[in-house]
Amino acid sequence: MTREFRIGMIGYGFMGRAHSNAWRQASQFFDLPVRPVLKAACARNAAAIQAFASNWGYESIETDWRKMLQRSDIDAVDICVPNNLHHEISIAAAKAGKAVLCEKPLAMNVAEGEEMCAAVEKAGVPNMVWYNYRRVPAVTLAHNLIGQGKLGRIFHFRANFLQDWTIAAEVPQGGNALWRLDVDAAGSGVTGDLLAHCIDTAIWLNGSIRDVTAMTETFVKERMHSGTGKVQPVGIDDACAFLCHFENGSLGIFESTRYARGHKALYTFEINGEHASIRWDLHDLHRLEYFDHADEGALRGWRSIHVTDHGGEHPYMNHWWVPGLQIGYEHSFIHQVADFLTSLDGGTFEGPNFRDALETQRVCDAVLKSAKEKVWTVV
Amino acid sequence: MTREFRIGMIGYGFMGRAHSNAWRQASQFFDLPVRPVLKAACARNAAAIQAFASNWGYESIETDWRKMLQRSDIDAVDICVPNNLHHEISIAAAKAGKAVLCEKPLAMNVAEGEEMCAAVEKAGVPNMVWYNYRRVPAVTLAHNLIGQGKLGRIFHFRANFLQDWTIAAEVPQGGNALWRLDVDAAGSGVTGDLLAHCIDTAIWLNGSIRDVTAMTETFVKERMHSGTGKVQPVGIDDACAFLCHFENGSLGIFESTRYARGHKALYTFEINGEHASIRWDLHDLHRLEYFDHADEGALRGWRSIHVTDHGGEHPYMNHWWVPGLQIGYEHSFIHQVADFLTSLDGGTFEGPNFRDALETQRVCDAVLKSAKEKVWTVV
Amino acid sequence: MTREFRIGMIGYGFMGRAHSNAWRQASQFFDLPVRPVLKAACARNAAAIQAFASNWGYESIETDWRKMLQRSDIDAVDICVPNNLHHEISIAAAKAGKAVLCEKPLAMNVAEGEEMCAAVEKAGVPNMVWYNYRRVPAVTLAHNLIGQGKLGRIFHFRANFLQDWTIAAEVPQGGNALWRLDVDAAGSGVTGDLLAHCIDTAIWLNGSIRDVTAMTETFVKERMHSGTGKVQPVGIDDACAFLCHFENGSLGIFESTRYARGHKALYTFEINGEHASIRWDLHDLHRLEYFDHADEGALRGWRSIHVTDHGGEHPYMNHWWVPGLQIGYEHSFIHQVADFLTSLDGGTFEGPNFRDALETQRVCDAVLKSAKEKVWTVV
Amino acid sequence: MTREFRIGMIGYGFMGRAHSNAWRQASQFFDLPVRPVLKAACARNAAAIQAFASNWGYESIETDWRKMLQRSDIDAVDICVPNNLHHEISIAAAKAGKAVLCEKPLAMNVAEGEEMCAAVEKAGVPNMVWYNYRRVPAVTLAHNLIGQGKLGRIFHFRANFLQDWTIAAEVPQGGNALWRLDVDAAGSGVTGDLLAHCIDTAIWLNGSIRDVTAMTETFVKERMHSGTGKVQPVGIDDACAFLCHFENGSLGIFESTRYARGHKALYTFEINGEHASIRWDLHDLHRLEYFDHADEGALRGWRSIHVTDHGGEHPYMNHWWVPGLQIGYEHSFIHQVADFLTSLDGGTFEGPNFRDALETQRVCDAVLKSAKEKVWTVV
Repeated sequence: MTREFRIGMIGYGFMGRAHSNAWRQASQFFDLPVRPVLKAACARNAAAIQAFASNWGYESIETDWRKMLQRSDIDAVDICVPNNLHHEISIAAAKAGKAVLCEKPLAMNVAEGEEMCAAVEKAGVPNMVWYNYRRVPAVTLAHNLIGQGKLGRIFHFRANFLQDWTIAAEVPQGGNALWRLDVDAAGSGVTGDLLAHCIDTAIWLNGSIRDVTAMTETFVKERMHSGTGKVQPVGIDDACAFLCHFENGSLGIFESTRYARGHKALYTFEINGEHASIRWDLHDLHRLEYFDHADEGALRGWRSIHVTDHGGEHPYMNHWWVPGLQIGYEHSFIHQVADFLTSLDGGTFEGPNFRDALETQRVCDAVLKSAKEKVWTVV
Repeated sequence: MTREFRIGMIGYGFMGRAHSNAWRQASQFFDLPVRPVLKAACARNAAAIQAFASNWGYESIETDWRKMLQRSDIDAVDICVPNNLHHEISIAAAKAGKAVLCEKPLAMNVAEGEEMCAAVEKAGVPNMVWYNYRRVPAVTLAHNLIGQGKLGRIFHFRANFLQDWTIAAEVPQGGNALWRLDVDAAGSGVTGDLLAHCIDTAIWLNGSIRDVTAMTETFVKERMHSGTGKVQPVGIDDACAFLCHFENGSLGIFESTRYARGHKALYTFEINGEHASIRWDLHDLHRLEYFDHADEGALRGWRSIHVTDHGGEHPYMNHWWVPGLQIGYEHSFIHQVADFLTSLDGGTFEGPNFRDALETQRVCDAVLKSAKEKVWTVV
Repeated sequence: MTREFRIGMIGYGFMGRAHSNAWRQASQFFDLPVRPVLKAACARNAAAIQAFASNWGYESIETDWRKMLQRSDIDAVDICVPNNLHHEISIAAAKAGKAVLCEKPLAMNVAEGEEMCAAVEKAGVPNMVWYNYRRVPAVTLAHNLIGQGKLGRIFHFRANFLQDWTIAAEVPQGGNALWRLDVDAAGSGVTGDLLAHCIDTAIWLNGSIRDVTAMTETFVKERMHSGTGKVQPVGIDDACAFLCHFENGSLGIFESTRYARGHKALYTFEINGEHASIRWDLHDLHRLEYFDHADEGALRGWRSIHVTDHGGEHPYMNHWWVPGLQIGYEHSFIHQVADFLTSLDGGTFEGPNFRDALETQRVCDAVLKSAKEKVWTVV
Repeated sequence: MTREFRIGMIGYGFMGRAHSNAWRQASQFFDLPVRPVLKAACARNAAAIQAFASNWGYESIETDWRKMLQRSDIDAVDICVPNNLHHEISIAAAKAGKAVLCEKPLAMNVAEGEEMCAAVEKAGVPNMVWYNYRRVPAVTLAHNLIGQGKLGRIFHFRANFLQDWTIAAEVPQGGNALWRLDVDAAGSGVTGDLLAHCIDTAIWLNGSIRDVTAMTETFVKERMHSGTGKVQPVGIDDACAFLCHFENGSLGIFESTRYARGHKALYTFEINGEHASIRWDLHDLHRLEYFDHADEGALRGWRSIHVTDHGGEHPYMNHWWVPGLQIGYEHSFIHQVADFLTSLDGGTFEGPNFRDALETQRVCDAVLKSAKEKVWTVV
């Protein structure tokens, strides 16, 4: 009989749904050493969390996360609440000996992140951060190709994360759905919400970032606050762009905004190497574009690879359907769950764990500092 | 307490997986009047079906479908076995008073299909056929646009379903995974397997087909049979193309093959109307291309619509994630389950039911007859 | 001093412009054994042809093509008048010992075409037909790849030529610009105007066509005639589609229409071989799409080749600019002129000459006959 | 009789060809108040310039540009020599009362550029700089759309110019074809060669740039010099990226490199406004991508506009062929010639003239200064 891995979920928003689905789906598609069990869901609003728990099949609810941490029938805490709560809950969970699975970004800042790393490492508990895009099969394939040396020396890395949902000045800040616009809950705007994804992927694919020069902008200066009902100054960055040097000598260029009309969640990256180049974007996440200079001269061109093959050739895809049939966004979480659970059986979790996510946090902090002080800033 | 809808699954192959997943997922994402329960899974191979049942959470197994039909704790039979078994099982299930959910194509031929329709209609049982592509959100959107009259008079409909997996002469016919290449199990080749999908969508979007002229080809004439171990003549069509007239006066052109190098499952259709045109393909199923002649002259162009919006604008998508985050192939089955179950509460199931699928069968039979006799054939 | 090749142009419409430009441009970009000289332009309307001649630099004008054929200072006649005049002028030009360069389609029908072939071959004069698309660099590259055996055995050839400019019932037939809608001047509709291009390319790439089954449609049954001012029945085919077998055993599927909303001049073809596939379309004529099954499994994908390289790798492109800078439609004519003139120096003209164009004419006639009689028709 | 406009060309390289073609072609496609005449071509190498003159139809040659400036039968000097010669020749030409048509970038630096502007303005001679990309029809269309207010407030402008032709360390610097890699001849690397194009377009579309933060890199530190035959340090920037603020409050992000494997000449820009967004790239220069938020919600998508329509809707295109038939790179020069010559008849030349190009030069200098000093720099 497979051992159970009992999840205590904190939060019930967008990420609460995405994670719950992942815990529910992983066992049917992957052969896992442990079986995830949706043990308890926790939020202050009892009615809301009960409805959430019923929908997803959680066996019980809690309205105080501290109480849930005391339960002996919980193996892991999945933290799906706003960023300003990650620090306290993570450290308490580590102390309680729970595995800690924290939504990204890790923390409000590096100082918090360092304490969180120290806590999980001292407690020796399994930990991970939900930078899910590493496990889109096309992105994993990109990682594998770089690991195989197909690109050779890297010259350029560029990434964007473009959205357009906050252009209207009428969009409020704060409250349940819109805490991402409230600097007190989110810590920053697009930098922590969107660029953090780009940075996590960039470091995973291309190594550490050395220094940055950045600019940020807040296009709409005041918005109504859902909590207070008053029009208040907007504290977050609506847009952020930065240039950087990677440790390997390549140049980086990153941009994120919520004011790019026409883009819903266009996360893209491109990496140019001596021998080959790679491109990917989230709007067609099942495709990888690849250019190989070793191809016969007259026939060189960017290949559009439909990353849906079986047989181990395309990462994770032998667990799904048949070639040509795409999977979607939610599957990246399922893959992360599968890899994490597999590692519990004495294997290695490839990350990102708290320590990895702290490095991303360092870059975010350097970016925000550079933008504020208008100077090149070492990470 | 929500009423249960107890599924008896017959078969455990590719479609058995896709359907099981749909039954498991629908309740979490849709508010349904009944709750699907995976009651029993059935196949002759006890070990295989037990493993399947354990993986997906079926409560019990059967090794004889006749026995499963006798169980009073089964509300519906889901038929996921080769085409040559659809007829017998469907009729028996209808007689047993079960809802009948049959994989496509409906039958081996029109004669079988007519008997199956008569059986379910006489029994008055809910019935449907798994032409799942109608419920890809972009395809449903196409249907809605046509229903709103956005295209005006239709002139052209063209559809392809291109694959490349049987080019190697070493691929055997028959056996578990490859019964689709065995004419005795499948009835036909690409016509019933792939073109049937195109035809179902075409009729749904553009109305009935009046007459056809067709050609078929079998490129590899003999293949080893997995069952007998002998090299035997290949009885299926490797490729099929046909021209047709629709009842509305528009022209149709259809093609399918398993010999189109470079295409895994490239199901595409395009429909040209007086005012607007629409294109879709399965390799990027979350997109719909749309051209509107009413756009300002200098700015006319094909729009690539990322069909991932909330708010009811994009069919089904308010049940999933946030704009820009795509879903995949499996979701079309979940949507079909959701629509079917919703209709059980006194609503209307938009189809396809057995009667709808019989019309597709008629076109398939006419196509095969036309190809054989080399004459225009009335459907 | 380079020998002159003195052109007598008949006609001054769209093709008159495109050809005149080609004669003017070829010498600057290609090293040619003869130098084209725009000697005379001819049309019945003296004012119109004088304006045309002045614009393009023709040294003289004629208002009677018979008179131009008598001039000893004319080496070649370029026939850019409606299809119903090709036969008479070509035969007279051949008899006068002129090289004959005839717009496509060759003739109104096969009977005319045979007489025209006989005339130029008896006279031994250089002759060609302006099926210009063979010499789009991407199409020539496709031809070269097939010649190198990169595709292996061919299974499928499909081609479309889709336009939308005659949907409005108000478009008249006949007259200067619209003789293509007048069956007396054009002989047929899309079959001779558009499908003839597809057929010429298809035969060049994939060999002869054996038999066809076709359908045609005239969506707008009556149009005002520009000449008579009266509403008259429309005699041309607005749309035509056909299935066919090639001599090499591959299957063909062709379609053309002027009622495909959203497409201006979307000529596309795709060819699927055992080892590789090729796609091209006229709306992005500087690109060739190529899929090679020999690529490493995980990295297979359609390559989008930007056919703009120097160094002989991409046909014709070493005569133009630098890699990445595209050429356009008009250049296909310049290339045809360059190849034709080069062949005058004792080389071989790769075609299409009158004999080649007659084969295309045979297919067009078979298609129209099949559509009319509703039977498979041998070419 | 149309007045002649007599060109004296200096240089015979890539740009000498592109400009000569433009002068030869403009009259046939545009109704111009003056007729360009290729009067003289000039270069130090007599044999080379004679061959060039013969090919393009120049009536005479010169081997000393000073001598050509003295000729009374020359109305305009077209400067197609390396950047380090622009200053001296332009000023001399202005003093000689010639119209001055200078290749981009205007000068080696702002100081030179100011003197050049002063010279042409003092002399009152017509002047222009060959930033040709403004007159790609799709780019002009973008400009028109912005002018009509379709985008509303602008938030973001991003542009790239990516190439890959200098990755190999074996590529030498200096000499005829490769002076662009020699800092003494070129002044800078990608900044003046490629980013200058992006900046010119950006200012034209989005207004002035206020300040910048930049980084540059030279990946290959030493290359053989074609002139000296020795391996020498490379003085140019191989890659350059910068962030900026526009005067209108929008954010800019620019990048250029010759080390982006897979890109030949991928100049792209995107501009995001409150109401609409626009994208364009040079590899498919006949297309404009356009997103309009005013479109009906469910049908919003990026439109791919094939900018080839007649009737004045698509800039310049009524002078060419028929809808759907693309033009190419060279046509942007023809359009610039046509606009410039038209302005000689008392009209206004929309630019860029020397004064406009000086503004671009200021940005380039600020970018290079910022990269060198690692500080934000005001333009």
